[in-house]
Amino acid sequence: MSRAASRQVHLVRRPEGVPQPDDFALVEAPLPELAEGELLVENLWMSVDPYMRPRMTAGFELGEALSGGAIGRVVSSRHAVFREGDLVRSGLGFRDRFVSDGRGLQTLKPDPDLPLSVYLHALGGTGFTAYGGLLEIGKLKDGEQVFVSTAAGAVGSVAAQIAKLKGCYVVGSTGSDDKCDWLVNQAGIDVAINYKTHPIRQAVASATPRGIDVYFDNVGGEHLDAALRRMNMLGRIAVCGMISGYNGGGAPVSELANIIYGRVTLRGFVAADFMGAHERFLAEMTGWLKSGRIKYQETVVDGLDQAPGALIGLFSGANSGKMLVRLAK
Amino acid sequence: MSRAASRQVHLVRRPEGVPQPDDFALVEAPLPELAEGELLVENLWMSVDPYMRPRMTAGFELGEALSGGAIGRVVSSRHAVFREGDLVRSGLGFRDRFVSDGRGLQTLKPDPDLPLSVYLHALGGTGFTAYGGLLEIGKLKDGEQVFVSTAAGAVGSVAAQIAKLKGCYVVGSTGSDDKCDWLVNQAGIDVAINYKTHPIRQAVASATPRGIDVYFDNVGGEHLDAALRRMNMLGRIAVCGMISGYNGGGAPVSELANIIYGRVTLRGFVAADFMGAHERFLAEMTGWLKSGRIKYQETVVDGLDQAPGALIGLFSGANSGKMLVRLAK
Repeated sequence: MSRAASRQVHLVRRPEGVPQPDDFALVEAPLPELAEGELLVENLWMSVDPYMRPRMTAGFELGEALSGGAIGRVVSSRHAVFREGDLVRSGLGFRDRFVSDGRGLQTLKPDPDLPLSVYLHALGGTGFTAYGGLLEIGKLKDGEQVFVSTAAGAVGSVAAQIAKLKGCYVVGSTGSDDKCDWLVNQAGIDVAINYKTHPIRQAVASATPRGIDVYFDNVGGEHLDAALRRMNMLGRIAVCGMISGYNGGGAPVSELANIIYGRVTLRGFVAADFMGAHERFLAEMTGWLKSGRIKYQETVVDGLDQAPGALIGLFSGANSGKMLVRLAK
Repeated sequence: MSRAASRQVHLVRRPEGVPQPDDFALVEAPLPELAEGELLVENLWMSVDPYMRPRMTAGFELGEALSGGAIGRVVSSRHAVFREGDLVRSGLGFRDRFVSDGRGLQTLKPDPDLPLSVYLHALGGTGFTAYGGLLEIGKLKDGEQVFVSTAAGAVGSVAAQIAKLKGCYVVGSTGSDDKCDWLVNQAGIDVAINYKTHPIRQAVASATPRGIDVYFDNVGGEHLDAALRRMNMLGRIAVCGMISGYNGGGAPVSELANIIYGRVTLRGFVAADFMGAHERFLAEMTGWLKSGRIKYQETVVDGLDQAPGALIGLFSGANSGKMLVRLAK
């Protein structure tokens, strides 16, 4: 902590297709002395998520650090609220340290029975996205027929398990037999489809004999088409992401006309749409995690210099569950 | 009326692509003597509508009469409610006469200041679809930015004009300069796009400097893509039809990922979704028509044998406004 510098991952080129290592650069930037009202944070964990890919095309600035969920520890403070040693959540990932005036930081008081990292996934943005997307946007009712894509991912695995907790029949798609095995034997869903070895349309059709009431979409494209052919009357499609199109190709969808007679709703959403449910989410999810009713997987890489590779790896399914970068202990 | 026979248009072959005359056959079928509780109806007008195309693939039975909205007159009755001379609405178009036990028939008491035919469009299913789709499904608010496709058609022209009555900025697409002229100079919308002479994506972009809050979709495909690029935050897309895909080709949509950060809702619907608004619709629309605030066009062909050609003509834009078949006077 002696040298006042921050190491940061900058975006230096907008990717064409799948991001490449050269789209990023590791940059060392001087840190200012703390002024009155400021604090210095050392990041412990940071998140990489598929949603970052479209922001690399439009949203993130070139020549600046990327951003994303992070958990850090206050190492020094001249701020009235945040104290040295406090744990804080921020949107300032992709850097090892940063100076802040406190805006956008939240003090984190983790449950002592849970690992800190879950606050970046099941108890963080991805878990809340799954919870609200399924219950608030998808308006899931107990016992319905549910399909979740990227069901072994950070968002999908939580959505699939919440649906099981609500007594639903749950089909999930993922990209390897190992992930299918985890989904059926650990997460307890009804049918897991390896979309790389089984054509998704036929697999979804045969796995959903009673149709689909709620489709939690992380993929778009052929997955969405497969679901559109199976939607029940007044079904709902909560569109969380469309990873199949993030790296180009547009993920065309051909079966949208099915929504007309089926009176199906598609709704794109972000977590800001249901912030009113956040306290309830934290209470319920903490209970589910502590009782083991919601399980999770983490894929952890160490060191800020590994962050670009971790992000790139999301698009080839290198992660089982949540992909995390550990920056310090 | 002396010979007890009904002439009917049957579906005899499921079309590949655009329907052909040989997909239909004109059939004469004997009519039974009226039993107690039955009545004989002579149809005066019948409707042809784009939604009939997907039903020709699945829904209508081969070797039977097609069905669709019709208005007829009771020519003889042994029914307790319906009297000779009564006007009735039914779903039994595509035939000149039919015997009924009264189920599915509604007595029609037309406003004497309006032509009977409007009860098959502005005051019928297409008008109600426009009204409910815009207000109940699209949740239109006064003064919003609106885009309507097939805006000179039976549904679109009503939707576009209701949006103008609500103080909205309204852009409409249609397929000829004559129809554009009618839309701007008669219906009073703000911008009309001839999509056959102007690439729809660029035309929609330049016509909607303040984006789109509500898109009333009758087309799908490229029109939907053009709208998806322009949707405002929390925008709504009321999906009434996707005529661009009805005759094959699937009308692929590539821009759906735009709904995620824009938190846009797409909702497929049919008029059954908002039957609770029907009385209010009839009262409001009758007033708008009588005061001339809602204008309409009709394209009328005469004779049951012209019904297949009228239906086929919908897919090349042969209609201006509502396409109707007059069966008797």
